[in-house]
Amino acid sequence: MTTHKIHLHPSGETFACAESENLLAAMLRADIPFVTDCGGEGKCGKCAVQILAGEYSCRPHHHGQLDQSWTLACLTTPKTDLEIWIPETGKVSIITSADEIAAEFAPPPEITSMVREIKTIVPEANEADNSADLSRTILAFNKSGTDSPGFTLQALRKLPHTIRTGGETLFWIDTARNRIIDIDSAVSPRYGIAVDLGTTTVDVLLADLETGEILARAGGYNLQMTYGSDIIHRIISAGKKGNARRLKNLALRTINELIQRICDRVNVKREEIFAAAIAGNTTMIHLLLEIDPASIRLDPYVPAAVSFPIYLAGEIGLKIQKDAPVFIIPGVSSYVGGDIVSGLSSLDFNRKLTLYLDLGTNGEIVIGDGSWFAGCACSCGPAFEGGGIACGMRAMPGAVDKFWITSEGEMRMDTIDDEPPAGFCGSGLIDLMAGLFKAGIIDSRGRFRESAPQSKIVLQRRRKAFQIPVASGKILTLNEAEVDNLIRTKGALMAGIRCLLKELSLDIDKVEKILVAGNFGKHLNMENAITIGLLPDLPRKRFEFIGNASLKGAYFAIMSEEYRRKGEELSRQVTNIELSTLPGYNDEFIAACFLPHTDLNLFPSARSKSSSL
Amino acid sequence: MTTHKIHLHPSGETFACAESENLLAAMLRADIPFVTDCGGEGKCGKCAVQILAGEYSCRPHHHGQLDQSWTLACLTTPKTDLEIWIPETGKVSIITSADEIAAEFAPPPEITSMVREIKTIVPEANEADNSADLSRTILAFNKSGTDSPGFTLQALRKLPHTIRTGGETLFWIDTARNRIIDIDSAVSPRYGIAVDLGTTTVDVLLADLETGEILARAGGYNLQMTYGSDIIHRIISAGKKGNARRLKNLALRTINELIQRICDRVNVKREEIFAAAIAGNTTMIHLLLEIDPASIRLDPYVPAAVSFPIYLAGEIGLKIQKDAPVFIIPGVSSYVGGDIVSGLSSLDFNRKLTLYLDLGTNGEIVIGDGSWFAGCACSCGPAFEGGGIACGMRAMPGAVDKFWITSEGEMRMDTIDDEPPAGFCGSGLIDLMAGLFKAGIIDSRGRFRESAPQSKIVLQRRRKAFQIPVASGKILTLNEAEVDNLIRTKGALMAGIRCLLKELSLDIDKVEKILVAGNFGKHLNMENAITIGLLPDLPRKRFEFIGNASLKGAYFAIMSEEYRRKGEELSRQVTNIELSTLPGYNDEFIAACFLPHTDLNLFPSARSKSSSL
Repeated sequence: MTTHKIHLHPSGETFACAESENLLAAMLRADIPFVTDCGGEGKCGKCAVQILAGEYSCRPHHHGQLDQSWTLACLTTPKTDLEIWIPETGKVSIITSADEIAAEFAPPPEITSMVREIKTIVPEANEADNSADLSRTILAFNKSGTDSPGFTLQALRKLPHTIRTGGETLFWIDTARNRIIDIDSAVSPRYGIAVDLGTTTVDVLLADLETGEILARAGGYNLQMTYGSDIIHRIISAGKKGNARRLKNLALRTINELIQRICDRVNVKREEIFAAAIAGNTTMIHLLLEIDPASIRLDPYVPAAVSFPIYLAGEIGLKIQKDAPVFIIPGVSSYVGGDIVSGLSSLDFNRKLTLYLDLGTNGEIVIGDGSWFAGCACSCGPAFEGGGIACGMRAMPGAVDKFWITSEGEMRMDTIDDEPPAGFCGSGLIDLMAGLFKAGIIDSRGRFRESAPQSKIVLQRRRKAFQIPVASGKILTLNEAEVDNLIRTKGALMAGIRCLLKELSLDIDKVEKILVAGNFGKHLNMENAITIGLLPDLPRKRFEFIGNASLKGAYFAIMSEEYRRKGEELSRQVTNIELSTLPGYNDEFIAACFLPHTDLNLFPSARSKSSSL
Repeated sequence: MTTHKIHLHPSGETFACAESENLLAAMLRADIPFVTDCGGEGKCGKCAVQILAGEYSCRPHHHGQLDQSWTLACLTTPKTDLEIWIPETGKVSIITSADEIAAEFAPPPEITSMVREIKTIVPEANEADNSADLSRTILAFNKSGTDSPGFTLQALRKLPHTIRTGGETLFWIDTARNRIIDIDSAVSPRYGIAVDLGTTTVDVLLADLETGEILARAGGYNLQMTYGSDIIHRIISAGKKGNARRLKNLALRTINELIQRICDRVNVKREEIFAAAIAGNTTMIHLLLEIDPASIRLDPYVPAAVSFPIYLAGEIGLKIQKDAPVFIIPGVSSYVGGDIVSGLSSLDFNRKLTLYLDLGTNGEIVIGDGSWFAGCACSCGPAFEGGGIACGMRAMPGAVDKFWITSEGEMRMDTIDDEPPAGFCGSGLIDLMAGLFKAGIIDSRGRFRESAPQSKIVLQRRRKAFQIPVASGKILTLNEAEVDNLIRTKGALMAGIRCLLKELSLDIDKVEKILVAGNFGKHLNMENAITIGLLPDLPRKRFEFIGNASLKGAYFAIMSEEYRRKGEELSRQVTNIELSTLPGYNDEFIAACFLPHTDLNLFPSARSKSSSL
């Protein structure tokens, strides 16, 4: 078997690839993550790489827009050693602007962090009391009314020197374990990290443990995406030999790289991060901890665990202070996970009947008023996070987050940070769908109409695709299969909402508040979301877009004992409903796979608009 | 600087040595431990190595008995690459004979091990109860009256598969932390390891956690010996750059190698060892945990800690199951350590006034009756453990453990396992001293008499040395400096005993029991020990030789909650007396540096014998 050496730019990594093997497969084997949707079947076009040097052959595909030097890794086999360049699809977005951060999350009212600072003077030893340093320290704690804490080995090692520097000594205590994890002789801040570990995207936030001040926030793709773009495919992947370890490492690498980027940016050392809280759906948490998630996808959908002891960063593999406690926000069931509990815990419901929607790769739906909650999940897929859509991408600089078609039929768009358009993020895709629908380019079934401007329609794999020329000269396309994908995604969510309400005999009109969580929430155009039937057609003032509530809940958990307790209570309080076992879900789903819906009575706004056309 | 490559036999290790550097210094720099007493000054002769190939030069020394191919590593510099052979002074003695083990330690009356097995049936999940595996498991525990335990990450990872194999599941619980550390579907034994970490020698014992059965015991030199043969030198060494880490690693290597040897011998996997208890003096425990021991040797003699949280094997570096709890027997003070507490905890005192002597590198002396204890330590040095004496060695096969001189003046000896004599262990040295003294070869000040057989006396570095030809053709020698060393060792102990009793206004005759602990205890000839003034001259039936009581206490601690508690109580109960601060210690020491003592009224047996001579 002839193998060639493949050298990657810009990372500098190398891997071996046999002549009989495609580049993508060889890369995954070498643990080099690569974000794709189709898992290497030549469909999604996301494994596009540029060949800088060397010879190769490529099986035919339908991604004609790639120029000569570009090829799809999954369809390409090397004939010689190759130099290849991979675009930074895994590019990380980092926010450090205080305004942007403050606009989203204010600290919880009372700060009682997972790890807190205690100041004590430890009396010097003398002939009359030559008891051990540790004994005198514990006595000093007791005298100031603090329970005798334990000491990590690392803290104990620092004790003799630190207490001899004179004056007050600062002890950092992990309050859940009542254990000192570090000692210092001078004040210097310590930090906590909140993580929202999503199926498709991962967000991390760094906060000062004492003040609650958020220093930075970063988001990027979950590197596990190479092993399937939704939960079910991820679980199936994990069942294959060696993959459980690989998936764990990819999750850790994702989180640790985000942490490192943040630390570099705001000049904090990783070892100064003393606490972490992680919110994620049940499968993500299983994969992160390398716990077999197999039974999650098998009837009766039993996870190994939904609540976890507080493990240490070092045990889990988080690259922060190794004795830092890690609070994993507890979940409810296989499909209503800690991300939902985290989001709910960050909110006040004030006994108002509220519909809570988390639009991630799984769409989670919770209804309740604070005194009770019922929740379910529907598999939406990652379409609105830029997954499964060739022109889709995460909400980051260069993503089209606003799109509209003028009455003259011209396409207009805004991008994040005004960078040249690279693709559509979730809110952009919703605008695009609504725009195409309202302009009569696609019909209510998502098919391109005969009346659509034919100059913009091309054939891609025998499917019609709509071309959107963008400023950079690049042409973004959206084909009928992708439109269908987006319709199925929004249909799954709407079917879920309707089934859950029906199960509880609640009428949608009784819902006083609709909270829409998710990373794209703040960019979302509500009218457009209702136009395509993603959100129910209710009075607009009942809606609130709350951004990444899961991340906010994790942040609150680091900072406040009350919110950690709230998370634990919610994990017991939310009633889990298995959507797939409810009669009528499939009918609801089919009925919802139209724009906006087969039953236009549910969308009076659309009716009034279409009647006014 | 020309350097040469030195290849070691039989270990196969190599290291680099400059032409200007001696072999011993280069070996230590390369972290290759080598047991010496003098620290590389050409005095002790213990760094003898055989040169198999290559050229070298050696500074002159007084160890003339070495043949041509042998040299002292500390005085030798290489001229070419060398092949050298190191005798196995670090040889390990392993006991697996059930008889020998049973003769020493019987299990404690009631077994409540640090880690215990709990059998539970975890009900299968079904549509009516699809709660998480962990939730159903904890419910099953609660139903059987067990508190909700925590789970290590490793145990949690095994949970989904193990409970699905059907039938009873076995959970191994760390009772102190109330945490499951392993899960199994079929019964198989798990083990505990007891460690006596001495300054000079280290002993390890492997026991079945359920039955208490001892499977094996092993002992060897503490590899830290290369950094000083007593506590004070060890502490000074630890203060030099990089040495704290090195000393920790050497202690770990010593223990881990003994564990591995035992495991290999009795066919147990290291990962099946689920609990450990370690007894050691305060300095040894500091060095093992890499806690700075500096203040132990500085007035007012304050250790960093004498009691420790239960750390995990993985944190400390013990190579057993990484979540295995490690109980470190708590100590009293800088010089009355966990080894003494461990020994005391293993005994019943029944309100009898008891003198407890632990004859290690430090001689520790405790007096009390079970309701109270007072203890102190005197620096004896490692002479009776084979340290500082060229012909000394550990009690292991080939060591002379019995020696006597017949009335015809002929020397007779027994060796352990009847192997060819290689040196004298502690009991052999006591016999040797007593034999030379009784035969009139040395006088009460340890000087060779004019009347000694001159054919056996040679000059070593201007000091007289007594030659003892042994079966192998080798000649063992004992010089006046070494006799002096042994006298000072026994003198320090006796002075300690007398000062402690004086401080407490107790008369030696009131002592109802004298317990002599230490590895050489069981071979010790009591009459000879009294003859040289090592032990007080009391009615012989009051003496009991109890062997390695510190190891026994550690073994009991693994096996029994009661003994762990007893250790903790004792660490608070024993009153610490600083011997060096007592007036009159020096006078007592000087008076005790005679055979048996300057005050023969204290040794009536000696008086009656000498009068009968």
